Amino acid sequence: MRELQERILHEGRNLGGGILKVDSFLNHQIDPGLMGRAGAELARRLAATRPTKVLTAETSGIAPALATAAVLGVPVVFARKSPPLTMDYTIVKEECKSRTHNKMVELMVSTEYLRADERVLIIDDFLATAQTIIALARLVARVNAHLVGIGTVIEKTFERGRENARHLNVPIESLAVIVSMDDGKIIFE
Amino acid sequence: MRELQERILHEGRNLGGGILKVDSFLNHQIDPGLMGRAGAELARRLAATRPTKVLTAETSGIAPALATAAVLGVPVVFARKSPPLTMDYTIVKEECKSRTHNKMVELMVSTEYLRADERVLIIDDFLATAQTIIALARLVARVNAHLVGIGTVIEKTFERGRENARHLNVPIESLAVIVSMDDGKIIFE
Repeated sequence: MRELQERILHEGRNLGGGILKVDSFLNHQIDPGLMGRAGAELARRLAATRPTKVLTAETSGIAPALATAAVLGVPVVFARKSPPLTMDYTIVKEECKSRTHNKMVELMVSTEYLRADERVLIIDDFLATAQTIIALARLVARVNAHLVGIGTVIEKTFERGRENARHLNVPIESLAVIVSMDDGKIIFE
Repeated sequence: MRELQERILHEGRNLGGGILKVDSFLNHQIDPGLMGRAGAELARRLAATRPTKVLTAETSGIAPALATAAVLGVPVVFARKSPPLTMDYTIVKEECKSRTHNKMVELMVSTEYLRADERVLIIDDFLATAQTIIALARLVARVNAHLVGIGTVIEKTFERGRENARHLNVPIESLAVIVSMDDGKIIFE
C-alpha cells in the first residue's frame, strides 16, 4: 500500500534494534483517514476467508481492527491485558512477550464474545516476531473457534513473524513489508 | 440516541455499585456500525467547537474517538497508561482513578502530538465521575492547548461527572444519559 509506505518513510523513525516508531499515525496519534483506507485494503485482501469476527489485542491493534471489521461488517473483540471490573465472566488467558513494552503480558478474552465455531480473523498493527499474534491464535484454539486469517498494517520480515506463524496455516496479509532496518534505514520489499 | 439506548437496555448488565457492563458492543467487543453512527452523532453535535484534534484515553475511548475524528477529519491522540519503547520523547503525565479498574492510573501524552494552541475535543466511552476526562483536560492545559468540548457515549448522571467537569467551561455531549441504576434497573433521562 503505497500511501502507507510513504507515511512510514516520511514520518517513521528507526529507533534502532528493529524498533520502528510510527506514533504520528498508528501507535499514539491515529490518522482516521489512513486507518480507514488500511482497513478497507485488509478487508479486500482477506474477505475470502469469510470471518465472523475480528480479534485484536489492546491497544494499538484496535484502530486497524475496527477499520477492517467495519468494512467486513463483523464485530471486533480486543483481548485485554488487565481485566476491568466488568469482566465478571469466564475468560481464557495466554501469555506473550510484548515487543514494544519489552515484558511479558497476559492477553485475555471472554468466552462470551469469542465462541466455538466462530471464524476469526486476527488483525494487529505489527507483524514482527508474531508472539502476540500466536498468543491470540492460542486463544482462538482454546475456545474451539477457527482461525481463518491474519492481517497486519506493517510487517518486519527480519523478525521472522511470518515463519513463526506458518504453522497456523492461514493466509497472512501485511500492507507495508519492511525487509531491513539496518544502518538507520527503512527498506521495503 | 435511541439505537444506543436500546442496545444498552437489551445487552447492558447492571452489575451494581453503578457499574454498567456493555462489553458486547463497547468495552470488550466493539460493534463497528454502532460506533460509526455514535461517532457521527458526536461529531454533528460538537462540530461547532471546531476541534483540530480528538484526545482520548486507552483503551475503551479509542473506538468512539476514532469514529468521531473520522467524521470531523482530524487526528486522534490516545493518552497511554504505560509508555512503550517508542515513547522516546517529552511526555506530560497526569494521574486519575480508573472507575472500572478501581486503581490509580497515569495518563501520558507526547508533546509531539498534543501541541500548544491546538483545539482539543475530548471523547471517551463513559462520563461517570469525570476523573479521566478531568485528567485529560489537565494534560491539554499543561501543553497550553485549548479544550473546546467533551463528548461521551454513555453518561451516568448520578456519578456527577457533569458537575465535576463544569469548571472546564466547555460543551459536554453524551449520547445516552442514565439517571439511575438503582435496584438493578437502567433508567434513562
